[in-house]
Amino acid sequence: MLRGLTTAGLGEITSNEEYIRSAAEFGFQAVDLNPLELIEELGQEKALALLESTGITIGSFSLDVDWRSTEENFRAGLEQLVRVAEAAAALNCKACCTYILPSTDLPAAPFMIAATRRLRLCADILGAYGISLGLEFVGSNHLRTQWANPFIWTMEDTLEWMEAINSRNVGLLLDSYHWYTNGLTTDDLLKLKPEQITHAHINDAKDLPIPELLDGDRLYPGEGVIDLAGFLESLVKIGYKGVVAQEVLAPGSGQTSQELLARSKAGFDKVFAPLGL
Amino acid sequence: MLRGLTTAGLGEITSNEEYIRSAAEFGFQAVDLNPLELIEELGQEKALALLESTGITIGSFSLDVDWRSTEENFRAGLEQLVRVAEAAAALNCKACCTYILPSTDLPAAPFMIAATRRLRLCADILGAYGISLGLEFVGSNHLRTQWANPFIWTMEDTLEWMEAINSRNVGLLLDSYHWYTNGLTTDDLLKLKPEQITHAHINDAKDLPIPELLDGDRLYPGEGVIDLAGFLESLVKIGYKGVVAQEVLAPGSGQTSQELLARSKAGFDKVFAPLGL
Amino acid sequence: MLRGLTTAGLGEITSNEEYIRSAAEFGFQAVDLNPLELIEELGQEKALALLESTGITIGSFSLDVDWRSTEENFRAGLEQLVRVAEAAAALNCKACCTYILPSTDLPAAPFMIAATRRLRLCADILGAYGISLGLEFVGSNHLRTQWANPFIWTMEDTLEWMEAINSRNVGLLLDSYHWYTNGLTTDDLLKLKPEQITHAHINDAKDLPIPELLDGDRLYPGEGVIDLAGFLESLVKIGYKGVVAQEVLAPGSGQTSQELLARSKAGFDKVFAPLGL
Amino acid sequence: MLRGLTTAGLGEITSNEEYIRSAAEFGFQAVDLNPLELIEELGQEKALALLESTGITIGSFSLDVDWRSTEENFRAGLEQLVRVAEAAAALNCKACCTYILPSTDLPAAPFMIAATRRLRLCADILGAYGISLGLEFVGSNHLRTQWANPFIWTMEDTLEWMEAINSRNVGLLLDSYHWYTNGLTTDDLLKLKPEQITHAHINDAKDLPIPELLDGDRLYPGEGVIDLAGFLESLVKIGYKGVVAQEVLAPGSGQTSQELLARSKAGFDKVFAPLGL
Repeated sequence: MLRGLTTAGLGEITSNEEYIRSAAEFGFQAVDLNPLELIEELGQEKALALLESTGITIGSFSLDVDWRSTEENFRAGLEQLVRVAEAAAALNCKACCTYILPSTDLPAAPFMIAATRRLRLCADILGAYGISLGLEFVGSNHLRTQWANPFIWTMEDTLEWMEAINSRNVGLLLDSYHWYTNGLTTDDLLKLKPEQITHAHINDAKDLPIPELLDGDRLYPGEGVIDLAGFLESLVKIGYKGVVAQEVLAPGSGQTSQELLARSKAGFDKVFAPLGL
Repeated sequence: MLRGLTTAGLGEITSNEEYIRSAAEFGFQAVDLNPLELIEELGQEKALALLESTGITIGSFSLDVDWRSTEENFRAGLEQLVRVAEAAAALNCKACCTYILPSTDLPAAPFMIAATRRLRLCADILGAYGISLGLEFVGSNHLRTQWANPFIWTMEDTLEWMEAINSRNVGLLLDSYHWYTNGLTTDDLLKLKPEQITHAHINDAKDLPIPELLDGDRLYPGEGVIDLAGFLESLVKIGYKGVVAQEVLAPGSGQTSQELLARSKAGFDKVFAPLGL
Repeated sequence: MLRGLTTAGLGEITSNEEYIRSAAEFGFQAVDLNPLELIEELGQEKALALLESTGITIGSFSLDVDWRSTEENFRAGLEQLVRVAEAAAALNCKACCTYILPSTDLPAAPFMIAATRRLRLCADILGAYGISLGLEFVGSNHLRTQWANPFIWTMEDTLEWMEAINSRNVGLLLDSYHWYTNGLTTDDLLKLKPEQITHAHINDAKDLPIPELLDGDRLYPGEGVIDLAGFLESLVKIGYKGVVAQEVLAPGSGQTSQELLARSKAGFDKVFAPLGL
Repeated sequence: MLRGLTTAGLGEITSNEEYIRSAAEFGFQAVDLNPLELIEELGQEKALALLESTGITIGSFSLDVDWRSTEENFRAGLEQLVRVAEAAAALNCKACCTYILPSTDLPAAPFMIAATRRLRLCADILGAYGISLGLEFVGSNHLRTQWANPFIWTMEDTLEWMEAINSRNVGLLLDSYHWYTNGLTTDDLLKLKPEQITHAHINDAKDLPIPELLDGDRLYPGEGVIDLAGFLESLVKIGYKGVVAQEVLAPGSGQTSQELLARSKAGFDKVFAPLGL
């Protein structure tokens, strides 16, 4: 498993280059970022050299295609998807991720129809570049009633959806926060096969009743109540060898980026310690 | 287009053989029935001979696989599906149909996931035998709130679903009653391509406000208010060459089977007259 | 059915605008051309206005993705495919076509694997824009041994391939020259369903033994020995309503473009005459 | 990884019950057998009890559907496929395997089309029962010219084929004999992900030039020249946790079944020893 970062929880990062260098400096092995942006900033050769010299892997990038609204919006993102997939392949990034909101103002069944068809096409395009599509189920209870109609939020439904989408390269983006807010246990993780996990996120939660935990109020790994050692140990046991990236969606802390990187490193050191990795 | 029957609206029919002979006698060209049952009753050779001598085609058979409840129930029907598909192929029947209830007690999005996956497998098995799967959208307004959660009932959503299922041999079962209760017009039919229609049903409706029309209270073709001539003309115009079968789901009429066949024939004569077929 | 043109057989056409105007002038209803090119030349608004004012439909455009060589070459064409599909959708063009060479220097089975996967992705991308992919089988006998290993050239194998590709929007590009050089008859056409035909080409053949007919030595419709009236009548009978476009791959004739358009018109008039369309 | 057996190389085994008990007695953890046959012999309850009491897992069963000849033969096996899949699911067997002959008397490209479509349907049926389909590439050089046309025999082509088949539950059956006769190395194994391997076979080869090694003349593990420790170590490294089953296709040895089981155990002890498992 690789220790990874997203920009969420790192404060102001002025460039992807700084992001990559800082990640390496604080002992991380992977960052989630947009590979096309990186190539546009540095050129492909320098981008590859930067990744190699720092030992940083690009863990995942966001699916920027709008698969949640109209057909027009969906189509409008496909050309860019091909371009970012090309860039990702050039930089050896193998995962692209998107999240599933637990409720929707659209009627649920027709929206599921459209979403299934659209995500299949995204997955199939990504597949031509050797890239997997990770689907992130979102457990935060308050989001289940944020919009008019319930959609899906459980790991089990997401696994089922992967079968309905029916592309070989679709897996989970497994986030410890959503695992926790869904009331799942390590036993649920131990039933997974490594190939079912495209990417993982790690975050911690406040000591509140689960229904009160807000999606945008997460803690740094090791600062909260989630059994992150159990989470990580389970991933190791089933043979997951990918990235585990922090994504601390939370109000600003007032700390500098360097302070937040140090804090993140301390959190990872703490929760990874029992693994003896 | 072939004039077809289902047993709905025909009263007591004592055997498939009687059903086929009566259909022919009253000028029909197709019947919906279970081809495996027919082979079990008569043997394949006699079944084929009966169809040939009467000039009757088997229009469609019902998908008996339970795709609406548990995975166990779904699996339990697959062996029989293979057997009936074999029988259908042996008797040159090319269509298998199922209907979509407009609401469900299951959560809508997860049910759509399961239904998509299950119907794809059914279609793929049928496809090995050259059989198409027809999906019948159900317009009857009262069924949209019959169960806890809305599912789908429009032609447009059903067409979209066909794309999400993604098998080449899935089309619509287009029923005039559901076309009417969805408030659709001939313009909506004229947008269809013939290959999008696997099978058609023809029924008439009482002269009531659409929201009050009950699914189990239909009229014989020509006895109600639906523009069935327009329905049929549109199908001819787009090039549909398949079966149009009556399916009068209604309380018992007290008439004999022979009387009901004669009544059905009269209805077809009336609504087909403007076509000059 | 619409009378259509390709540029093959028309001599020097200086622009797409001239091509469209000339087609209309000589009574044609459709042209095959690259819709992205047309938009780049005229802008989308003027392109649409030109098509509308001339009554010309864009019949089909060529699949420019290289699905026949390396994975790198294949990927390199995907971004452009999205762009041309967008342009096609904007101009109401519904078909994209590619041809299948009957032999290959690659080992046949592995090449079939790659081609199946690649054409599926092309079809799926096109499908997002409502465009079908037409596969043209090539009957010209000499091409079956032009390269080291036989591939496929029959209509039957191509129909089977459509099932293996398994996208809903893949059909045949049916060319009379390949129908003839495969030794097919009108009976073979009458077995087709209209949805199996994405696009049609019409060409004539010299009065030579079939094995001697060269792919690049075709005649204008009506100038050779193919039963084109039978070809067209069969398409009408099964309900095909799409474009039939001339594609005279032949050595230069020395005639001007205007002369060739007149000659093409005369050929169409001759072979369409028995249809009474 | 589980130590597994097939009946190949075990001489006369009189029943599945004896096979299972003997396997356990000699320290094996899995056997390849037909789960439907086992249920027909013992009943489901006793079959499950036997597996549980002996600690034996059913590693895999053979795909008995004939996907290599006519459509009729293919269809004729589908009902039985559903029945054996049901039995397999009832006995917790998760893999079904078939082998790919490296040459064929059918034209290669059309056969690849049919095989792709047929194996997809088999995989999809198996998938409904949580079972994966393993495809065994066959390296034995002499079989590449045994029939008229070359088909596929490399691991790389088989991996590509899995993508073309496009079902989520298709993987490799990786046999050390075919790995060796293809001239592959441990580096080739280290590039695999565990999910790409549905099942593994282990066999040894005589000390002959690779082109002279016959498919039906294999040795027991540890008795030949294949680097089986390297083979197994690579599987462990990439995280493969499934069965590795012996399948010694060879002329009769004259030894009793008990002697052959002891010989097999000795072979496994030898080649597994370096793993320290």
